[in-house]
Amino acid sequence: MQIAAKAKEASRKTATLTTELKNLALWQIADELEQNKSLIFEANQKDLTTAKPLLETGDITKSVFNRLKLDENKMRDMIHGVKDVADLADPVGKVLLKRELDNGLLLQKVSCPIGVIGIIFEARPDVIVQISSLAIKSANAVILKGGKEAVNTNKTLLSVINSALQKIDGFPAATIQQVFTRDDVNDMLKCDRHIDLIIPRGGNRLVQFIKENTKIPVLGHAAGVCHIFIDESANPEMATKIVIDAKTQYPSACNAVETLLIHKRFKEMEKLLTALRSAGITLIDNPGDWSFEYGDPTLAFKIVNDIDEAIEHINRYGSGHTDAVVTENAANADKFMNEVDSSGVYHNVSTRFADGFRYGFGAEVGISTNKTHARGPVGLEGLTIYKYKLIGNGHIVAEYMDGTKSFHHRDLKI
Amino acid sequence: MQIAAKAKEASRKTATLTTELKNLALWQIADELEQNKSLIFEANQKDLTTAKPLLETGDITKSVFNRLKLDENKMRDMIHGVKDVADLADPVGKVLLKRELDNGLLLQKVSCPIGVIGIIFEARPDVIVQISSLAIKSANAVILKGGKEAVNTNKTLLSVINSALQKIDGFPAATIQQVFTRDDVNDMLKCDRHIDLIIPRGGNRLVQFIKENTKIPVLGHAAGVCHIFIDESANPEMATKIVIDAKTQYPSACNAVETLLIHKRFKEMEKLLTALRSAGITLIDNPGDWSFEYGDPTLAFKIVNDIDEAIEHINRYGSGHTDAVVTENAANADKFMNEVDSSGVYHNVSTRFADGFRYGFGAEVGISTNKTHARGPVGLEGLTIYKYKLIGNGHIVAEYMDGTKSFHHRDLKI
Repeated sequence: MQIAAKAKEASRKTATLTTELKNLALWQIADELEQNKSLIFEANQKDLTTAKPLLETGDITKSVFNRLKLDENKMRDMIHGVKDVADLADPVGKVLLKRELDNGLLLQKVSCPIGVIGIIFEARPDVIVQISSLAIKSANAVILKGGKEAVNTNKTLLSVINSALQKIDGFPAATIQQVFTRDDVNDMLKCDRHIDLIIPRGGNRLVQFIKENTKIPVLGHAAGVCHIFIDESANPEMATKIVIDAKTQYPSACNAVETLLIHKRFKEMEKLLTALRSAGITLIDNPGDWSFEYGDPTLAFKIVNDIDEAIEHINRYGSGHTDAVVTENAANADKFMNEVDSSGVYHNVSTRFADGFRYGFGAEVGISTNKTHARGPVGLEGLTIYKYKLIGNGHIVAEYMDGTKSFHHRDLKI
Repeated sequence: MQIAAKAKEASRKTATLTTELKNLALWQIADELEQNKSLIFEANQKDLTTAKPLLETGDITKSVFNRLKLDENKMRDMIHGVKDVADLADPVGKVLLKRELDNGLLLQKVSCPIGVIGIIFEARPDVIVQISSLAIKSANAVILKGGKEAVNTNKTLLSVINSALQKIDGFPAATIQQVFTRDDVNDMLKCDRHIDLIIPRGGNRLVQFIKENTKIPVLGHAAGVCHIFIDESANPEMATKIVIDAKTQYPSACNAVETLLIHKRFKEMEKLLTALRSAGITLIDNPGDWSFEYGDPTLAFKIVNDIDEAIEHINRYGSGHTDAVVTENAANADKFMNEVDSSGVYHNVSTRFADGFRYGFGAEVGISTNKTHARGPVGLEGLTIYKYKLIGNGHIVAEYMDGTKSFHHRDLKI
């Protein structure tokens, strides 16, 4: 794939850009997005016109249509987001370890970009701008594949971004590229020589398809089957408030709760269930599939014998996303947070807090349920890796093997 | 796969063990290895007896035979290694970030084990003991598959380890398990539900096979095609010394140099090449394949026009393992270390330093050329990931959306 090879080549140069140049590029993008707003709205209108009949025939959902639509507010947030990324600390070039191995032999572990990242997302054109900003700041090259519904908007956004980047002297041309077809995606997934990481942002089926069809590491989450366990000692008002927030505040979010587990000795069970129903929640006792992500105000529930059963249920049927316990018992809270194997383990808090902005990361690539590299909400740091730099003065290993020299491994202040 | 499911179950319990219990387990293993030395040597003798005719017919190499053979020295090092791991800091439970998101809403990023790790290695029985120790200290469950030549030794070592672990009250039984056949490996590679990471330790073909046949993340390196670039300004004596060390000190190591790049204006070129030949190195000018790992005292070499050509060559043909520049020019050293995209980038140092023990990690899982999770020599830290713990007092997201509350994101001292 020509585009992937070009991205790899660009990424070597992008990796060496200074913080100043990267921030200059981000400011230039923000400016040009501002200047080209009407052009972007025009392109978006085209996409909306194509999408409208599909909405009417039910070929796309209302929520896809809404995500596709750019308005003044979204545009403002989008431009603001680019400036926010410029304000974040540079994640590249951070010294993570500085150790003198021996006299004159200095080891440094330094953060650096991953290289080339493929991003496959569904119909949300603002993702293009967000991911491009994060890629620039973390000095990675990216290949973007957006939803076909947003093709005109995406093309226009990328041309504005790249026209801005062209004005930055020394900025490698192929840092941000875009592809459009399903065949392109299949090609991308095969490019393990040139693409270092794939980040899918979309529904379960998209993520599953990608995981099944590539050898490239995939960062993301397929499902968001979050749980809340109401322990015996839970404060009933707090329990009610947290479950209602976690289920109704934004039911289609991946961090919304799907299953409620209630300790059999929780005294206010009936009152809780009544309150949840009053809040518009449909409760399902014993659904066939405990791993189903409803994405609407439906909530599965189960009465459990003890905290161990709750933990086991979550580890078996959950997706490792975010799970909460409501309890006044500190030992149980600790037990839950240590034994539940999820990226987020919460005590007396709604699951909806699982989010890079709420965690204070300033920007978010997505949420990962991976067990390697990055887990939970992923910010700029998740787009970096590190390299080891070793500086000496003719040091050779033979002298350490024959006992002439020996290591003293002295950590230096960073 | 029954074994993988059992490993997953065990891993949830192993994850919660205290440092004290894990160290107790390691000391118990060291003791029992010491007590059962003759049993282990006996089993090893059986493997050697089976291997001997294969060595004579050339079905196994001398180096495989030597790696298979345990002697008093290797046994002593092996037992010492277990105690060393006990002495290392616990990589689990480290607080990596502590941030107050708002009053009474505390976020902590805490290191935790990955879960279940599959290790597939060739005929080196000491790997069993080393990896088991690292797994215990990092609180992961492991499934080990060793080389078939070492089957008796491996079985005996594992039974000694597990008999030691049985004596530790509360230590989960299925933390360290072993499988034996090629079919078992194929089953393991399919267990992406229960196995979180595969670490292959062996030749290029083994690693390639595994990468091609699993969806589980793989940590390791296939090839070790390391380079040394002799810049125009290189100190000739230093250059000679470093290249001889990097090629001859242990030619079959993955961090041995395979390709020498020499700046066309380096004045002492002929003298350097003569010295290398005198040291027993066979030089090959323009080999057909620049990505070949010789693993013996053969060294490919190429004269390049400038540092850019050297960097491009390395990024194109190298394996991203470890590459060195010999130069007296500080700007060139910086350029090389920033632009070469390898896990180790060295200045005036032999490539042979790429090693967890030499870096002061105390133990090594292997060397990774991955661009995600862990890169370069991987110690205990590479066997961990993290989870986010969020503790509140009935906090819900709705109040932050409607403006009742707002985040203040205050980092606390760890």
